[in-house]
Amino acid sequence: MPDYQAFRVELADKIAHVIIDRPEKANAMNADFWREIIEIFRWVDDTDEVRAVVLSGAGKHFSSGIDLMLLAQAANVLGKDIGRNAEILRRKILELQASFNAVDLCRKPVLAAIHGYCLGGGIDLIAACDMRYSTRDAQFSIKEIDIGMAADVGTLQRLPRLIGDGMMRELAYTGRHFDGEEARSMGLVNRTFDDPQALLDGVFAIARDIAAKSPLAVRGTKEMVRYMRDHRVDDGLEYIATWNAAMLQSADLRVAMAAHMNKQKPEFAD
Amino acid sequence: MPDYQAFRVELADKIAHVIIDRPEKANAMNADFWREIIEIFRWVDDTDEVRAVVLSGAGKHFSSGIDLMLLAQAANVLGKDIGRNAEILRRKILELQASFNAVDLCRKPVLAAIHGYCLGGGIDLIAACDMRYSTRDAQFSIKEIDIGMAADVGTLQRLPRLIGDGMMRELAYTGRHFDGEEARSMGLVNRTFDDPQALLDGVFAIARDIAAKSPLAVRGTKEMVRYMRDHRVDDGLEYIATWNAAMLQSADLRVAMAAHMNKQKPEFAD
Amino acid sequence: MPDYQAFRVELADKIAHVIIDRPEKANAMNADFWREIIEIFRWVDDTDEVRAVVLSGAGKHFSSGIDLMLLAQAANVLGKDIGRNAEILRRKILELQASFNAVDLCRKPVLAAIHGYCLGGGIDLIAACDMRYSTRDAQFSIKEIDIGMAADVGTLQRLPRLIGDGMMRELAYTGRHFDGEEARSMGLVNRTFDDPQALLDGVFAIARDIAAKSPLAVRGTKEMVRYMRDHRVDDGLEYIATWNAAMLQSADLRVAMAAHMNKQKPEFAD
Amino acid sequence: MPDYQAFRVELADKIAHVIIDRPEKANAMNADFWREIIEIFRWVDDTDEVRAVVLSGAGKHFSSGIDLMLLAQAANVLGKDIGRNAEILRRKILELQASFNAVDLCRKPVLAAIHGYCLGGGIDLIAACDMRYSTRDAQFSIKEIDIGMAADVGTLQRLPRLIGDGMMRELAYTGRHFDGEEARSMGLVNRTFDDPQALLDGVFAIARDIAAKSPLAVRGTKEMVRYMRDHRVDDGLEYIATWNAAMLQSADLRVAMAAHMNKQKPEFAD
Amino acid sequence: MPDYQAFRVELADKIAHVIIDRPEKANAMNADFWREIIEIFRWVDDTDEVRAVVLSGAGKHFSSGIDLMLLAQAANVLGKDIGRNAEILRRKILELQASFNAVDLCRKPVLAAIHGYCLGGGIDLIAACDMRYSTRDAQFSIKEIDIGMAADVGTLQRLPRLIGDGMMRELAYTGRHFDGEEARSMGLVNRTFDDPQALLDGVFAIARDIAAKSPLAVRGTKEMVRYMRDHRVDDGLEYIATWNAAMLQSADLRVAMAAHMNKQKPEFAD
Amino acid sequence: MPDYQAFRVELADKIAHVIIDRPEKANAMNADFWREIIEIFRWVDDTDEVRAVVLSGAGKHFSSGIDLMLLAQAANVLGKDIGRNAEILRRKILELQASFNAVDLCRKPVLAAIHGYCLGGGIDLIAACDMRYSTRDAQFSIKEIDIGMAADVGTLQRLPRLIGDGMMRELAYTGRHFDGEEARSMGLVNRTFDDPQALLDGVFAIARDIAAKSPLAVRGTKEMVRYMRDHRVDDGLEYIATWNAAMLQSADLRVAMAAHMNKQKPEFAD
Repeated sequence: MPDYQAFRVELADKIAHVIIDRPEKANAMNADFWREIIEIFRWVDDTDEVRAVVLSGAGKHFSSGIDLMLLAQAANVLGKDIGRNAEILRRKILELQASFNAVDLCRKPVLAAIHGYCLGGGIDLIAACDMRYSTRDAQFSIKEIDIGMAADVGTLQRLPRLIGDGMMRELAYTGRHFDGEEARSMGLVNRTFDDPQALLDGVFAIARDIAAKSPLAVRGTKEMVRYMRDHRVDDGLEYIATWNAAMLQSADLRVAMAAHMNKQKPEFAD
Repeated sequence: MPDYQAFRVELADKIAHVIIDRPEKANAMNADFWREIIEIFRWVDDTDEVRAVVLSGAGKHFSSGIDLMLLAQAANVLGKDIGRNAEILRRKILELQASFNAVDLCRKPVLAAIHGYCLGGGIDLIAACDMRYSTRDAQFSIKEIDIGMAADVGTLQRLPRLIGDGMMRELAYTGRHFDGEEARSMGLVNRTFDDPQALLDGVFAIARDIAAKSPLAVRGTKEMVRYMRDHRVDDGLEYIATWNAAMLQSADLRVAMAAHMNKQKPEFAD
Repeated sequence: MPDYQAFRVELADKIAHVIIDRPEKANAMNADFWREIIEIFRWVDDTDEVRAVVLSGAGKHFSSGIDLMLLAQAANVLGKDIGRNAEILRRKILELQASFNAVDLCRKPVLAAIHGYCLGGGIDLIAACDMRYSTRDAQFSIKEIDIGMAADVGTLQRLPRLIGDGMMRELAYTGRHFDGEEARSMGLVNRTFDDPQALLDGVFAIARDIAAKSPLAVRGTKEMVRYMRDHRVDDGLEYIATWNAAMLQSADLRVAMAAHMNKQKPEFAD
Repeated sequence: MPDYQAFRVELADKIAHVIIDRPEKANAMNADFWREIIEIFRWVDDTDEVRAVVLSGAGKHFSSGIDLMLLAQAANVLGKDIGRNAEILRRKILELQASFNAVDLCRKPVLAAIHGYCLGGGIDLIAACDMRYSTRDAQFSIKEIDIGMAADVGTLQRLPRLIGDGMMRELAYTGRHFDGEEARSMGLVNRTFDDPQALLDGVFAIARDIAAKSPLAVRGTKEMVRYMRDHRVDDGLEYIATWNAAMLQSADLRVAMAAHMNKQKPEFAD
Repeated sequence: MPDYQAFRVELADKIAHVIIDRPEKANAMNADFWREIIEIFRWVDDTDEVRAVVLSGAGKHFSSGIDLMLLAQAANVLGKDIGRNAEILRRKILELQASFNAVDLCRKPVLAAIHGYCLGGGIDLIAACDMRYSTRDAQFSIKEIDIGMAADVGTLQRLPRLIGDGMMRELAYTGRHFDGEEARSMGLVNRTFDDPQALLDGVFAIARDIAAKSPLAVRGTKEMVRYMRDHRVDDGLEYIATWNAAMLQSADLRVAMAAHMNKQKPEFAD
Repeated sequence: MPDYQAFRVELADKIAHVIIDRPEKANAMNADFWREIIEIFRWVDDTDEVRAVVLSGAGKHFSSGIDLMLLAQAANVLGKDIGRNAEILRRKILELQASFNAVDLCRKPVLAAIHGYCLGGGIDLIAACDMRYSTRDAQFSIKEIDIGMAADVGTLQRLPRLIGDGMMRELAYTGRHFDGEEARSMGLVNRTFDDPQALLDGVFAIARDIAAKSPLAVRGTKEMVRYMRDHRVDDGLEYIATWNAAMLQSADLRVAMAAHMNKQKPEFAD
């Protein structure tokens, strides 16, 4: 595991802890952040030992969103022709989106643990995670509207699948703050906790539960839920049938069954 | 109405009561179950008198899911070639899915009344029903993860349309139990009741309400809601326009209108 | 702004207030209503000064739904041939749908403020709005089932995206009344208020918030959320990248950024 | 039938002949053209007597495409802000597209008879027709590439359904001319004729064949083929079943059947 | 293999020959036909020995389409209410469609060998086959338009994928006859032959080629091509990757490889 | 431009010539090939000077498909568990697919010039190109069926969009050879040439034509045609409107218009 500039990554008990680590900048997302997150989640995907990921922020906040310095620099690469600038911007946006697609498409479940601010790009990021948990007083905002733009790295695409369409629009049009409790009541976070320590403890407990299951079964489950976000029920049924055609021949079923019979905890290979 | 091994079926007041009837096995789903449920719902679909269905479990539980004996037998039909085994398994899964598709595609509304355990295949089954009601202390679990596999007869396909994506993943990855109250708060069940009798009373009251409506209108409504689960809004608008092009020429509108004028209860033909 | 028969329209502070104005008929939707709503929302779309819309009902109710006189008249245009009648009905339904599509497709956010009755067509209408707010004691009902038909101007198409599939079916099959509080708990309305005046005050406050944002950014956000109702996440990501390729070259970003730096309120061109 | 500036419209024998009538400008598409074509096809759709449409060009050519004057004027409405200009252009393009959508969505079959030049917008137009016939020496070209833009009123969207993807790309990237014979060999036109008179005679003969069939059946067929351009086979099967549920109750089947028994020509109501 | 009324079925050299066998009625499709074709193709699907199917007609013709007696009988089951009749007709059409879906969804390739008339329902049937071959002078017609209805058992849904959209519409609107040569030139049939015997010889030769390949690979290929008719390229790539994840572990690859090395003909298990 | 092991790349006159360069192995696709093709097309995409690509094979053949050594090695990474092996194989296939996706998604047109053998993986590759040209005697075969597997790197996904569904299945089930002339007649190649030199001359002439057009317009056109392969007509119309909202503000339109007025050849910036 190499060193990262914008992150700190730890691996223990089959759980990777990915920590956004620019606390002095409220974990604003700079160029390092966007590049490294792809590398980290490729490593997660390729490392058999990792069975689940917890994603959190160092210091007082989860993340204040994209570093405004980065936006300013982006403007510098533009030239004179509006059409060619449009092409440059389009490719740049697609490139930034790829960073959060890496989280979304990672085969292992990613649990976001959110405290303090989670603003703008922070919402785009957590919308790409599997589950979200927060402190009761965490502060969320779809901030992009306040810098005069429609959010373009995932919030407007993934959030409508997570919260109701009506509340989605209110939050996206107004950019108003909402706290952990309101986030929970609208289905954005699964559970809230009293403080950052209780949050991490709680999230790691769930991650450990997941890490104890058959990794094949967890990954298959994730693939199916991800697939259903965009596909028809009949296509989904056909897809799982094709998928399980191979997976039901795995040893994990026998391991699970034997443990069940013997009332023991099963031990699955990575 | 023939006799069934795994079910008991009653018809009264235009409502079919379909009862899973293997209480000594916690209503585990054996070979009889998977075959008979198709026959029953074909009968429901073909019998004009039936206008709504209540689905419940005999004894202490709704259902503990697939009978593990069945899984064990399935392994016996496999041969030596991994590819051919994959094809056999794929077809077997598609065949099991067809049993719950019969519930989903039935033209009459199906109301699940759930008490006690509703585990594994039980969740797959209720996800194929129109509405779900339970006792407050019913126990639910997406159990498949604990036998080392991704659920493959409908839970992962239909449940994400019923509950939030974030909670969906937590429940599917961990297999943790949740009770009727939590099920209600996440939108899985519409209402909870104090005990099994209150549950059945409540569900039958709703079923009677539905059975008093125009059967054509109820079936058209079900088709449209089912259709929208997988289609675009513009396609849905075109579909209902085509559907109602015939249905608005039915006598049911005149019957309803006349009853409305005379402040009487309308009587619709089956 | 011309005079309307079924509506009253006011414009102030960049917010259009569209009021259904047939209080003596409980704002039932007559022929004028269906034609004028298209004209009004075309005007909204074409008038740069309008940045948000509040939609409400004059008198005691939001709307009691389609005027039954209109239904009766529709029957008069039918002839003898069932096939040709089907074609006439199909085109008529598509024409009525177009009235509410005009609300749905309007580029500016539309906030429905609901009090009193919101029945039948009233639900179809609010389902085409961006957000919904109501008094606590507002009364909602998917009334169409009671006139012997499946709802065909939008409720069955748009509502399943707004509330849970299970509750959707119960309400559509039974037509039972539910109040503002229940509407809020199922995600149909974002917030409830004590009385009609508090409701209008609250909704106008949100509308003013929206009207103060970059109009380009608000319209882009609406387009993206609308698009996601029917498209895949990957298509949505590509679409916003193409959209923002032009929009990030707008002055609104610089205006927003400058105001942010100077801690001032930004002023955006219409 | 009112007078048109850019068109001449004739109706005889249940066939509307729509003639682009700016021969001195090679039937270039000016502002009149784009507005009037919508009115004409609304009239076609609403006039029961019209059962088929033949679309052709007066003078030496079918059409040389969009009038360059129009493009020049379009530039005049642009302002200073790139984002707002993008919005104006986007809406303008959607408006032009609507003119050809009116042809595509018209319920009656539209047969294009093409001679001389059919360039740029001319291709966009014929791609929205049901069938295309041409003289052997007609000259086609996807001209837009030569004015520095990607075609945006239908060619790139509809043509790939009509000709092979590989040839589609060659023609769209190079803008090279191809004649009627090559157009026929790639499936763009159904048949070629020696000269303009033979072309019109041939096309009217086919139109008369169509006009003698049940109009309900022809319109149903058109709707189904149009639908299949964008939908799945299973959706299409369900759609025709719903459609024919009403249409098979029409008198046209009995009329056709009786004529068949008596070996007579059936006469269908409009 | 049981006896059939409307068919004769032979099995030799791993090829099933399914012969429509009502020559005295020009192989018109009666009630027996529609029921038995489902049974036959279920048997084909379930019988490992069958690796390919040849479908042809006994006597002078392939098939003259649906038996008009059947249509007449269908009318008899209708009652008085237009809406209920619509429902009956809709279900009846879906039931007839299921007969040809059985051909389309059969896992083994089906080769149609067509001579003489192939009219109306005959086209619906061959459109559901994998490949079509005919005599040069076979006569085709989308006959449904001449009995006053839009074709509803597959032609309008499957044929646009097989022939160009423009020719599709001409043939469906006019019902005109076209011969084997024209069918070949538009891609409907792959090859034409001089006479029925040459046709059968040629088609059986191709069927034998297919029967000699790995059955797993042929079935996987069919599934993929069928899937692509209705799905996106990216979905298709993901689907084959999931499919081959199991199938590449089959012995058939080793058998094929070994035969290739030794320049021998491979022998695959059924 | 770095050195490649499996390719030779040349750049002149704004056209990149990408040559598969393992003539002694009939350009079989080894590990170098699969890795380097991604790098090359990323370079093509990122290098403004490149406006079109010609792809050909060195020596006697275009390509004989995947190197069988590579397949053999792939088997070595497999372990004991069938489920885990399935996951490894699935990821490996997705990785190989990515190599040809790089060709498909490249923003610049890719013209394949094919002579000699084009077998197995060779077909997968050319199916990902924009256009295909060949010598008259080139030899094509969907070879995968002969090694006991369904093709899984693009042929079964992309070819059905290029050739008729009926011929597609014949070629995929039988693996039979077909030559350049037959390929042309089924729409797989746009044109055939007498010999390899005439082929390259002809293809470069077309590439030069394309390279002389506005690069923005060419790239927009490619994106739209690619998009239409998988999307609806209405979505495509909306997408080009959004795309051109920016692109019509480019200088290229003025350059093209001015050149048109002055009857000069336009010169576009890269």
